Amino acid sequence: MEDLTKKIIKFVDDRDWRQFHNPKDTAISLVLEATEYLEHFQWKNPEEIKKHIQDKKEDIGEELADILYWVILNAYYLDIDLQKAVEKKLEKNAQKYPIEKAKGQHTKYTEL
Amino acid sequence: MEDLTKKIIKFVDDRDWRQFHNPKDTAISLVLEATEYLEHFQWKNPEEIKKHIQDKKEDIGEELADILYWVILNAYYLDIDLQKAVEKKLEKNAQKYPIEKAKGQHTKYTEL
Amino acid sequence: MEDLTKKIIKFVDDRDWRQFHNPKDTAISLVLEATEYLEHFQWKNPEEIKKHIQDKKEDIGEELADILYWVILNAYYLDIDLQKAVEKKLEKNAQKYPIEKAKGQHTKYTEL
Amino acid sequence: MEDLTKKIIKFVDDRDWRQFHNPKDTAISLVLEATEYLEHFQWKNPEEIKKHIQDKKEDIGEELADILYWVILNAYYLDIDLQKAVEKKLEKNAQKYPIEKAKGQHTKYTEL
Repeated sequence: MEDLTKKIIKFVDDRDWRQFHNPKDTAISLVLEATEYLEHFQWKNPEEIKKHIQDKKEDIGEELADILYWVILNAYYLDIDLQKAVEKKLEKNAQKYPIEKAKGQHTKYTEL
Repeated sequence: MEDLTKKIIKFVDDRDWRQFHNPKDTAISLVLEATEYLEHFQWKNPEEIKKHIQDKKEDIGEELADILYWVILNAYYLDIDLQKAVEKKLEKNAQKYPIEKAKGQHTKYTEL
Repeated sequence: MEDLTKKIIKFVDDRDWRQFHNPKDTAISLVLEATEYLEHFQWKNPEEIKKHIQDKKEDIGEELADILYWVILNAYYLDIDLQKAVEKKLEKNAQKYPIEKAKGQHTKYTEL
Repeated sequence: MEDLTKKIIKFVDDRDWRQFHNPKDTAISLVLEATEYLEHFQWKNPEEIKKHIQDKKEDIGEELADILYWVILNAYYLDIDLQKAVEKKLEKNAQKYPIEKAKGQHTKYTEL
């Protein structure tokens, strides 16, 4: 992640783009890229999705890359350690969804 | 990233949740988490956003963690190497946005 | 629509909320409400969706109402006649998707 | 609204598209159209937004029309009376946000 972060920041700073990156607009980018990813699976049944993934794996990977690009940039600007943030979240979710209760269940923790 | 991926997959498999993770719904998760992140910055001017980030840094970090969790899971299921995907995307964008043209400009590449 | 518009504007003006309604944030509201609506159908197969619609019709209707509320408000602030805008769009789409070509096809117009 | 609904349904049925319109995918359409609308206001300050609205009013109106198209279709398929749903929602919100408390305040009802 550190290596990716450096490359992304260099890409941005080479172009002097940091001046445009305010929190509201960079958060909007995250949403826009996430919906572009989702669009790949719309109007398709599971069979068609399977085929689409085979045919367009590179395009779909690019969309995920776009989302990750913005996740990393947002975290960088807000000074958030993503590795730690995910680990903390996993611990928190492990308490919300204890294995014995959540196993094979797809109910929200409030209804477990 | 590899380490995080392992931890996330273990979290999911401990709960036997893989059965629920079809591409359309996991893509929807990405969108939903991205909008929760965006919500932090709505109805606030730059000054208020700055204060909000100071006051709620942990909450905001959790939202980014949620997005990254789903980015990693989606990539894992689709067998996409995120590190490589971002690097490829940066190269592609470097051609779309050559430094000499894009520097300090916030125009889409089609209008550069 | 006119009647609804009046009621919505009265609701907003009674609370003196117009001052907060800038285009970026009211557009974000549209996205947030749309994702709340989508959330109702996530993690469910067609059978479960059918049941959910029966059980939660009122809640789901509320989400659609929230979206329409923001559509109407956004249109009002931008001085856009929604009735005319939809009619125009239907005409435009009728040309993009001529009946003889588009019938029973779910392909984008660029691929018809 | 009734008139628009009829026109939209005729447009869909002329093309025999109802078969593709399951609740999850039509809800996704709502999200996708809402983000296209939002995209108009990204990376712009209030001054630039004002200018953009003047320059692109027709395009922006089309995006709102696309959202309304899907609001109406979703409501039609779920048999929801939009007029009534919005009126009910306004009454509910009037109780959550009583004028004397909410006037000039932009706090969530839980914090009023």
